[in-house]
Amino acid sequence: MSITVVGSVAFDSIETPAGRRERCLGGAATYFSLAASYFTEVRVIAVVGEDFGAQEEQVFQARSIDTRGIEHTAGKSFFWEGSYLDNLNEAKTHATELNVFGAFEPKIPDAYSDSEFLFLANIDPVLQRRVRLAMPKARLVAGDTMNYWIKDHRPALLEVLKGLDVLLINDTETRMLANNSNLVQAARAVLSMGPRMLVVKHGEYGATSFHRAPANGVGTRPFRAPALPLEQVVDPTGAGDSFAGGFFGYLASQPELTPAAFRRAMFYGSVMGSFTVERFGTERLQQLSRADIDHRFTLFRELTHLD
Amino acid sequence: MSITVVGSVAFDSIETPAGRRERCLGGAATYFSLAASYFTEVRVIAVVGEDFGAQEEQVFQARSIDTRGIEHTAGKSFFWEGSYLDNLNEAKTHATELNVFGAFEPKIPDAYSDSEFLFLANIDPVLQRRVRLAMPKARLVAGDTMNYWIKDHRPALLEVLKGLDVLLINDTETRMLANNSNLVQAARAVLSMGPRMLVVKHGEYGATSFHRAPANGVGTRPFRAPALPLEQVVDPTGAGDSFAGGFFGYLASQPELTPAAFRRAMFYGSVMGSFTVERFGTERLQQLSRADIDHRFTLFRELTHLD
Repeated sequence: MSITVVGSVAFDSIETPAGRRERCLGGAATYFSLAASYFTEVRVIAVVGEDFGAQEEQVFQARSIDTRGIEHTAGKSFFWEGSYLDNLNEAKTHATELNVFGAFEPKIPDAYSDSEFLFLANIDPVLQRRVRLAMPKARLVAGDTMNYWIKDHRPALLEVLKGLDVLLINDTETRMLANNSNLVQAARAVLSMGPRMLVVKHGEYGATSFHRAPANGVGTRPFRAPALPLEQVVDPTGAGDSFAGGFFGYLASQPELTPAAFRRAMFYGSVMGSFTVERFGTERLQQLSRADIDHRFTLFRELTHLD
Repeated sequence: MSITVVGSVAFDSIETPAGRRERCLGGAATYFSLAASYFTEVRVIAVVGEDFGAQEEQVFQARSIDTRGIEHTAGKSFFWEGSYLDNLNEAKTHATELNVFGAFEPKIPDAYSDSEFLFLANIDPVLQRRVRLAMPKARLVAGDTMNYWIKDHRPALLEVLKGLDVLLINDTETRMLANNSNLVQAARAVLSMGPRMLVVKHGEYGATSFHRAPANGVGTRPFRAPALPLEQVVDPTGAGDSFAGGFFGYLASQPELTPAAFRRAMFYGSVMGSFTVERFGTERLQQLSRADIDHRFTLFRELTHLD
């Protein structure tokens, strides 16, 4: 099944203890697409400026990602500059220039309309909602958001949550959205807002899924995917979006969405996040093979399974 | 196999968002012993003052813990006062009164000398070393320590580490001991100091074991035990010592120390920690059954296993 993703395609300047990169290709939709592309067909909706050229386009083409929904306009692409010098778990933002992204009006190619999987990456919830409504054939809809929308755009965000099957956010965002410091209580509150599954991302400690109790009461327990203890984290940028791409890409590749498929999807999410942080930007995500991915999946199994 | 544990038996005054308790029975050796007592025979070496009476003794007796190594002296027992009001993951210490513990000279009853499992809870490394040398029949020795000994008593601590099979400490202590912020690199450095296994406790995110490469190269991969997402954490005090008790108690109950036994021990450690934090002090640890423990073990398996 194909996935349509809407979100940012950007340039990032990143500094970490391992070094510095200027204006490398980034953005949530980019990381998501590359990660998901190892599992299924991916279609992107985004906007870029004149600085997005053949070299950037080639990164998507090399992974057979459909870029017909990437609108090219006059001006510069979204730009972010950040560093992780004191703490690899949290970026310090030095600059955010919305540029062409500030007037983003998602345009959905007709060819995308049959996507049954839709991912709403972290953008204005008003736009997330608009895309969701324009894709009525989507039967599994997942999304992300961030503290800015939770704090200052809550009514619009709550509208989006009503239409989501899966929400993927981090610990802090979960607690903020529910206004509750206990993660289990916070997760229950978030599930009451609409999503039937919440994936809470814990950075270097993995991720936990929480599930709304279905009518039949099956598969309601939380599930924890670990993160891989890594010798070197070069650049954490995009790890969460790569998790989402691996998670959702794997689901879209499955003939049936069983509870076991969701558990494996959690592991594939962690697997893709673990690759991303090994190099700057999307470097590692551009060079994988399905064999690399499945080999790492077995490492995750050995890391957590008793037998 | 019996375990001998040396460490603190204390009184704690604790404040958490769930309430406050004055002078409840605590101390690393207390939590460790209670947790381990559900798996095997436990013998304690500690010192207490005149405030330790029949009621406290009864807590140990009810779990058939051998207290002949608890020395009673004039004065007051070790006392700690702390709170977790802002952050359930880190205690704020308001008072530490060593009292009789300040002059602690561990006295080992002859009846303890055949213990094949020895746990050196967090005390002065000079005393840890002395007890280790006095127990030559111990064939598996595990221990704990803390930032104070790592920073200011490093040479004595390094002597202890040479004689340890398993060291159990938290993330911060691991990074501090190795002076390396990457956990995998830090773990390797700690393993080069002596222990052949390092268990890094992550609080609400569980624990990871790292293993020194044995000659045959088997079983060297890290293993991650989760923590249980809990509806309410009443009091985190003693969770780490309870982890150690469950971990080491389970190992001592096994006919053979296989890699699989170590993995299950990691889960039993997390299980015992998860019970402790559900009530104040040792309240929950006093009231368990082996059936409660094994039921929760299955929850941990469901939380992490794909199939």
